[in-house]
Amino acid sequence: MLADSIFTTPSVEALFADTVELRYMLAVEAALAAAQAAAGLIPDAAAQRINEVCAQTDWSIELIATQTQLAGNPAIPVVNELKRRVGLLTPNLVGYVHVGATSQDLIDTALMLQLKAAFPLLQTALVDLIGQLKALADACGNTPLMGRTLLQHALPIMFGHKIAGWLDGLNRSAAHLEHMAQTGLVVQLGGPVGTLAQMGTEGPAIRKQVAEALGLGDAPAWHTQRDRLADIAAPLGTLNGLLGKLATDMILLMQTEVDELRERAEAGKGGSSSMPHKRNPVSATFMVAIAHQTPALVATLLGSMLQPHERAAGAWHSEWPVIRQLVKLTAANLYHANNLLTGLEVDTARMKTNSKN
Amino acid sequence: MLADSIFTTPSVEALFADTVELRYMLAVEAALAAAQAAAGLIPDAAAQRINEVCAQTDWSIELIATQTQLAGNPAIPVVNELKRRVGLLTPNLVGYVHVGATSQDLIDTALMLQLKAAFPLLQTALVDLIGQLKALADACGNTPLMGRTLLQHALPIMFGHKIAGWLDGLNRSAAHLEHMAQTGLVVQLGGPVGTLAQMGTEGPAIRKQVAEALGLGDAPAWHTQRDRLADIAAPLGTLNGLLGKLATDMILLMQTEVDELRERAEAGKGGSSSMPHKRNPVSATFMVAIAHQTPALVATLLGSMLQPHERAAGAWHSEWPVIRQLVKLTAANLYHANNLLTGLEVDTARMKTNSKN
Amino acid sequence: MLADSIFTTPSVEALFADTVELRYMLAVEAALAAAQAAAGLIPDAAAQRINEVCAQTDWSIELIATQTQLAGNPAIPVVNELKRRVGLLTPNLVGYVHVGATSQDLIDTALMLQLKAAFPLLQTALVDLIGQLKALADACGNTPLMGRTLLQHALPIMFGHKIAGWLDGLNRSAAHLEHMAQTGLVVQLGGPVGTLAQMGTEGPAIRKQVAEALGLGDAPAWHTQRDRLADIAAPLGTLNGLLGKLATDMILLMQTEVDELRERAEAGKGGSSSMPHKRNPVSATFMVAIAHQTPALVATLLGSMLQPHERAAGAWHSEWPVIRQLVKLTAANLYHANNLLTGLEVDTARMKTNSKN
Amino acid sequence: MLADSIFTTPSVEALFADTVELRYMLAVEAALAAAQAAAGLIPDAAAQRINEVCAQTDWSIELIATQTQLAGNPAIPVVNELKRRVGLLTPNLVGYVHVGATSQDLIDTALMLQLKAAFPLLQTALVDLIGQLKALADACGNTPLMGRTLLQHALPIMFGHKIAGWLDGLNRSAAHLEHMAQTGLVVQLGGPVGTLAQMGTEGPAIRKQVAEALGLGDAPAWHTQRDRLADIAAPLGTLNGLLGKLATDMILLMQTEVDELRERAEAGKGGSSSMPHKRNPVSATFMVAIAHQTPALVATLLGSMLQPHERAAGAWHSEWPVIRQLVKLTAANLYHANNLLTGLEVDTARMKTNSKN
Repeated sequence: MLADSIFTTPSVEALFADTVELRYMLAVEAALAAAQAAAGLIPDAAAQRINEVCAQTDWSIELIATQTQLAGNPAIPVVNELKRRVGLLTPNLVGYVHVGATSQDLIDTALMLQLKAAFPLLQTALVDLIGQLKALADACGNTPLMGRTLLQHALPIMFGHKIAGWLDGLNRSAAHLEHMAQTGLVVQLGGPVGTLAQMGTEGPAIRKQVAEALGLGDAPAWHTQRDRLADIAAPLGTLNGLLGKLATDMILLMQTEVDELRERAEAGKGGSSSMPHKRNPVSATFMVAIAHQTPALVATLLGSMLQPHERAAGAWHSEWPVIRQLVKLTAANLYHANNLLTGLEVDTARMKTNSKN
Repeated sequence: MLADSIFTTPSVEALFADTVELRYMLAVEAALAAAQAAAGLIPDAAAQRINEVCAQTDWSIELIATQTQLAGNPAIPVVNELKRRVGLLTPNLVGYVHVGATSQDLIDTALMLQLKAAFPLLQTALVDLIGQLKALADACGNTPLMGRTLLQHALPIMFGHKIAGWLDGLNRSAAHLEHMAQTGLVVQLGGPVGTLAQMGTEGPAIRKQVAEALGLGDAPAWHTQRDRLADIAAPLGTLNGLLGKLATDMILLMQTEVDELRERAEAGKGGSSSMPHKRNPVSATFMVAIAHQTPALVATLLGSMLQPHERAAGAWHSEWPVIRQLVKLTAANLYHANNLLTGLEVDTARMKTNSKN
Repeated sequence: MLADSIFTTPSVEALFADTVELRYMLAVEAALAAAQAAAGLIPDAAAQRINEVCAQTDWSIELIATQTQLAGNPAIPVVNELKRRVGLLTPNLVGYVHVGATSQDLIDTALMLQLKAAFPLLQTALVDLIGQLKALADACGNTPLMGRTLLQHALPIMFGHKIAGWLDGLNRSAAHLEHMAQTGLVVQLGGPVGTLAQMGTEGPAIRKQVAEALGLGDAPAWHTQRDRLADIAAPLGTLNGLLGKLATDMILLMQTEVDELRERAEAGKGGSSSMPHKRNPVSATFMVAIAHQTPALVATLLGSMLQPHERAAGAWHSEWPVIRQLVKLTAANLYHANNLLTGLEVDTARMKTNSKN
Repeated sequence: MLADSIFTTPSVEALFADTVELRYMLAVEAALAAAQAAAGLIPDAAAQRINEVCAQTDWSIELIATQTQLAGNPAIPVVNELKRRVGLLTPNLVGYVHVGATSQDLIDTALMLQLKAAFPLLQTALVDLIGQLKALADACGNTPLMGRTLLQHALPIMFGHKIAGWLDGLNRSAAHLEHMAQTGLVVQLGGPVGTLAQMGTEGPAIRKQVAEALGLGDAPAWHTQRDRLADIAAPLGTLNGLLGKLATDMILLMQTEVDELRERAEAGKGGSSSMPHKRNPVSATFMVAIAHQTPALVATLLGSMLQPHERAAGAWHSEWPVIRQLVKLTAANLYHANNLLTGLEVDTARMKTNSKN
């Protein structure tokens, strides 16, 4: 779609690239082998070999992607290819690949690693936005502004009061993201039916070491207890709502009749193909466009929580594009918000005048 | 609807009764007057009189409900009637009613008081459920059970492992509810445009005292920063997802072909109007029926966050039935879950047999 | 909730009353017995007796509602009580009650009868609204009005052009509702597993006669093919969207800065508890509040379509409150729309002036 | 995402490619110019020149995509580039490009053209599926099969009865798609504020000719009456629900304990990375994964209908990825369904045996 770039950012897009996803899966396999070697479950030579093969640079994305449709998930072709490559070098070590693990371990943990990489991008953008809003408050917060309720003039407030409202919600959101980044991103490692049984008594220790090696939290397998994913999605949904509120306020203040704000002037920005004199809200429009899409994504993840027994046939798979799309949209929303604030034109004289009507 | 009772519980239903809602609104007015008297903003006699009138037992619900449609919200007729009643006794004190407050202060705070009363009901039911699951694990957790992935036999696990999975999610949910009950239920008091300006420099102190008197947290006005409500809704959505997963597992284990569980036998329970020999899942069915409804309610609350300026024309109002419906459904889901566990018949012999196939 | 009346109308509320639902169920049983007697499947005397008992006026709603929770659905206690009452009078005829039918036949058909009664209410209200909009166009459609894109002044249009846009969508909606009322409301009669097997070769003829007697369309059993319900819900969702768009336009035109429209003045209408001088949008606000809720209800019905085998354990039950809530909200939305149009104040002078800016 | 191919098909993916979207936009511009020349609004030479330039093969997608973010939508850079290219050849004709049209005309009509190309793909796949189900019924429809209600054994049916249920819904869906393809795909042409005013009295005739040239229906501008898009989305939502029901039944019948169906055996298909002996449902799993995602997309489109005045700032833009994603998912769901049916293994002996339990 020609408008795709509105709904993502290059950095998050890069993070969700096939190659990155594959590298994260291979990182999981390497970490697993290392932990299993340390625990004496597999030979050191096997862990060493697996690590080497995982580092090979000539893995074919096409091969993996093509076989995913047939296999049912992308982990199966990754493991098959890993075994094939290990086997080419050391046939006797093939049996030490992916010992006691299952596809969902690989896929969920790789997702968590992607989220772990994505969260700082979101958090940094949110911190930037908060900084811009604070600067805006410093610059013109003490401008009188009409308070409006049900879109009717009510009583004058200060522009700083309105900014403080935006900041209030965004600060809570930043705290939620920080909390989630610190505690909510955990390893998935349970083996075929979530018991780690194939790793013997060393299972929990291996899992803990894998988690540490990957920089994730340790946790018992959560194959079909998907509150973990819903709990990650919910604050993203909330953040998009807050950004949508900010953008809605901005668009209303940019109305011709109100005219208290304008997005910065820039060649080619916010024009109209039929009315060149107009200065349309662009960044704020994109923010609203995103905020309209995210509630349904959260609902999909909540609705996909009814995952039967030890692995779901469909509900789990439905999460894959949805959580990623939610992260992409959140990153784009934050990008547009920062872009909106950069050079935002505040007509303080007009604010004052309007506040006296 | 004849089936209404499936989707609520008597205790939550009572909590959301018109009379209770009115009493909470009056409690807010009384607390506000007391705090304003303490701060010297209104005379003690006014606070005293307002308190007395708020305690009068002959308030007409019909009057309030009828005028709500015309007024635009239920707070306006409540305040009008409060003024009328104060005026009947002491005309000179009418002006001290609802000083510097706005409808949304009353409505949001009353909602928070209802949520504050509802949360312990939910939490107690969840604790009971966790207790029942632990008892179930104690009783027959070491029974071998077939682990099933994508609804295919995978490898045997213990029934206790499956129960531990359910408990894992529910324990996280209990912690979330506790955290929300402790920190997320706050007063709303900002006045017409959220600034507390009409209360002078004493505004924040008055708000703090109102919050304390009502047992709520103190917070700056959040009239159109609705992340607070979304943050309350999200863990309820997650809890319903976890309960739906539990019920889904149960229903699958109750299948005729699997037959490892049965809901307790009881006269009139789970029959079929056409096939009297059947033992249908009843409680588990209701749980799934509820879990299908809750994601969309969370989405509606997230989608309603784009509330313009200092008070929304519609998005705020849309929250009123939705958050209450979400609480009702959650309470009912927990009720059915506890009912399901009570007397649940576990066919351990059948579990063992199936685990060997 | 004190604000309940905003989200329903008395006529639809009455239609969804327990007693009405029960009467519809009994109407189905009576029609079934009559058709089965005509087909020679049961004695005429049985049909006569069942008809008499279904007409008895002393049925206890409490009894039915109470047993619903235990039985799993409201049809079971209704059938039990019907059998008991028939048996009291003529024990030998008990066996001719509900022959070859199942709970879902009763519940789905009763729902369809409720929808059949509700549709004309919705359609009449929509026709009224269309009439009011046409009258508005006749009265002041040729007033110049500023066209606004992205909430910026674009180029002048006529007010009649804007009204024509509203009418364009609403006329399509009226056609959809009419089409649905004519073709989409069908009987459900399939027996325990949807085959009508227990009615022998006369099954389809009996079903056809039941449908005719009840004024519904005839159709093969659709127990777990729920596109029929989704197809009814979707145009209601769309209608609410159109009404929400109308209300959004109105609210924006009522803004203090724009001031081209006002809801009619009326004692007690649209006041503010803190700012008595304001004229808030009330009906339009309620319309937006409703339009925010309906998309999620449609999504729930779509999401509940995955109903396994011959009867769902939960997904079917989840529809019961949701489809009714959707109808209630639609009726209320139309009520508010008509109320909004009645006495709507159009400031044509202001429109003209604004159109020249 | 490595699993992307599960959620789309090559043919629909190609249809939504940037280049195709651009070509459709240029087709609209060429058709518009031709119609305007025929109506005498612009010189024939201009239409001729515009047509030539629209056929130039060296348009840069990157240029368009890059400028979209700044401009606010992809139509603006397309029109700018079209003017630039016309101007390079014949500077005096630049003023005849895009006369009286607006960005939304271009974007909505191009979308309709994409949908017009997509519908036959969906319809053909659905016809294929219906054909496969009929063939399945012919082959083994008279096999006894246990009817199951609430996942309990109820009474035996024929497999053909179950297939007839699936077909019943899918046939209705096919009729809906056909109806929509015939009547619902219409041109968008209204100019800046939807009035066609800049085309004089010839506006409607020009619009009609553009519609005919493009193979779309004619209709008055529907810039902010978005029921048209919701009406297209709803039957796609319903179809995905029906496919999800089919897949759910299949997965349940493939359960180890039931074992009446199996997806066809194929090297690499449906294996498990940890349990090679398993035959997992793969196509059916993907179908459920898709059916979980589509209800929320329909809800988003319904929720985006509140588009203010003559063009929305955000709600319109939110539709762009959502409607396309819905079409992609529908195509993929149908693909998986056909793949599932191809070589589906029916264990009629097992069906018979189970039907006697």
